[in-house]
Amino acid sequence: MKKLINNPEDVVPDALQGMQAAHGDVLRVMIDPHYLCRADAPVQGKVALVSGGGSGHEPMHGGFVGPGMLDAACPGEVFTSPTPDQMLEATKAVDGGAGVLHIVKNYTGDVLNFEMAADLAREENIEVEAVVIDDDVAVQDSLYTAGRRGVGATVLAEKVCGGAAEEKRSLKEVADLCRKVNGNGRSMGMALTSCIVPAAGAPTFDLGEDEMEIGIGIHGEPGRERISLAPAREVVERLAGPIVEDLSLQQGDNVLAFVNSMGGTPLIELYIVFNELKKLLSGRGVNIARNLIGPYITSLEMAGCSITLLKLDDELTRLWDAPVSTPGLTWGA
Amino acid sequence: MKKLINNPEDVVPDALQGMQAAHGDVLRVMIDPHYLCRADAPVQGKVALVSGGGSGHEPMHGGFVGPGMLDAACPGEVFTSPTPDQMLEATKAVDGGAGVLHIVKNYTGDVLNFEMAADLAREENIEVEAVVIDDDVAVQDSLYTAGRRGVGATVLAEKVCGGAAEEKRSLKEVADLCRKVNGNGRSMGMALTSCIVPAAGAPTFDLGEDEMEIGIGIHGEPGRERISLAPAREVVERLAGPIVEDLSLQQGDNVLAFVNSMGGTPLIELYIVFNELKKLLSGRGVNIARNLIGPYITSLEMAGCSITLLKLDDELTRLWDAPVSTPGLTWGA
Repeated sequence: MKKLINNPEDVVPDALQGMQAAHGDVLRVMIDPHYLCRADAPVQGKVALVSGGGSGHEPMHGGFVGPGMLDAACPGEVFTSPTPDQMLEATKAVDGGAGVLHIVKNYTGDVLNFEMAADLAREENIEVEAVVIDDDVAVQDSLYTAGRRGVGATVLAEKVCGGAAEEKRSLKEVADLCRKVNGNGRSMGMALTSCIVPAAGAPTFDLGEDEMEIGIGIHGEPGRERISLAPAREVVERLAGPIVEDLSLQQGDNVLAFVNSMGGTPLIELYIVFNELKKLLSGRGVNIARNLIGPYITSLEMAGCSITLLKLDDELTRLWDAPVSTPGLTWGA
Repeated sequence: MKKLINNPEDVVPDALQGMQAAHGDVLRVMIDPHYLCRADAPVQGKVALVSGGGSGHEPMHGGFVGPGMLDAACPGEVFTSPTPDQMLEATKAVDGGAGVLHIVKNYTGDVLNFEMAADLAREENIEVEAVVIDDDVAVQDSLYTAGRRGVGATVLAEKVCGGAAEEKRSLKEVADLCRKVNGNGRSMGMALTSCIVPAAGAPTFDLGEDEMEIGIGIHGEPGRERISLAPAREVVERLAGPIVEDLSLQQGDNVLAFVNSMGGTPLIELYIVFNELKKLLSGRGVNIARNLIGPYITSLEMAGCSITLLKLDDELTRLWDAPVSTPGLTWGA
């Protein structure tokens, strides 16, 4: 296992200490239980956004804590759901009296634990809504999931809802926007290589030297099919085709196109993928009005990429463009 | 070779088309010869900054074109110097009457070609200064270099000089600042794996499953030593120790600490490295006043990292903080 780590069991606490050391001016890393929150939390009168999930997907979610995006993030062990007490403490810490939205990726552990945390928070008179993101069109059910998995649309939902919360919109309105992003967003990913979970020390799955997996999950869950290595053009067709179909994209539609590295794929390849995606969508009359290209929801060092398309309207576009200032995403601020 | 590409010979043009497709609102990708420049170039009365080098180090340099950083970048083939005609055409396109600074990484081909381009530009009555960056403390001479290699400090020089140029400072002043960053900045990198140059199709070097290379170059040039896999703590000592010594850092000094992914190393590991770096520097009384953590000067998909330290004063800090708006680096704008 070739990784820049100390002990496998210290990966998450060491990385969180690094986050605190690097970004202590804008966020606080809390210990026992672990969560990250805005340094200025709670922001009075603003709906607070809390997300979380297993570590290993950085910068998601901790790197998205800050003005214009999340108020708090709960990191679990690598590829392991955080616990209800993390979520409860984060919820209490960021509640500014206007309620708290839980943005939850659809994995069984995450969903159950966030439900439990919401119940406990409500007992303490905090208003909580939860929206489950399930945007992955690859498979209907998966290794850790009933229904579709939650992947790239989560990044977009956190940004859009963060913009709406800064405008002091109500909890119901922010939750409705989150459901809208989930309804308008679809994703699919692929892997060229497996990643290695530090505590396991061996690849999560085996993939031949001439093979790739289409429809992979962000924890290495099986995808739709294993095929021989193919050019970027064909990879993009296999990922974007089902997304375009599922979203029923029509000529004249505007989309946000998000090309994401799974962690080990460098930017030069993402731009080649983006170029093919632009050609594919142009051929169908679909306009890429906004884009995001880089490693934002990763799977440790897995090589591969995912594509997320979000159908835009004026409201979503305006909230996407709103200022954001987090370690992982910054503009206009 | 597992990469998201079409044909190996199309990697650079395909990626540049992707850059144009993604960022055409802020930059222009010119063909024959290839260069990228700010969409609003030339900016009258502002010193223009031009850099360039082999592709494969993205986002450097093309991703740093925009207000507050570069006016143009010249991409060569992967790990191959761009040609003098690219540099000449870029220089002519961005000259706004206040002169042009060439920021050149110290590799023999880059240095010779930028010298030739500067001579040709001067014949066309464009004032040109060039600063060669040679911040890599790993080895004295290298495979493609007489003297030290130019690596991470280049990113910092492009940002600091970009800030100064926006303030309409003179060519001499901006060039002096570039020399100051080079004088105050030192780097060292390491690799866990080799990368594969697409046209070669095979790893640039062989590294055993239990080995890493300390002092690697960004094209896979040999480093100082090959050692057995070691914890992040020890890797940081081996990289940062020689930097601290070379810069003669003293108790009370302020530095910018830049922890860079070579391309295949994910963010979670960079934060572990940053945490160790912070501990090492704190132990010597050196304060990390600013930081940059992520993949900014990469070597395709190579796994590994580099550390750059820049000794700060008030002027460098202020220019680092100045607004920047490029595909690869954005804040305050």
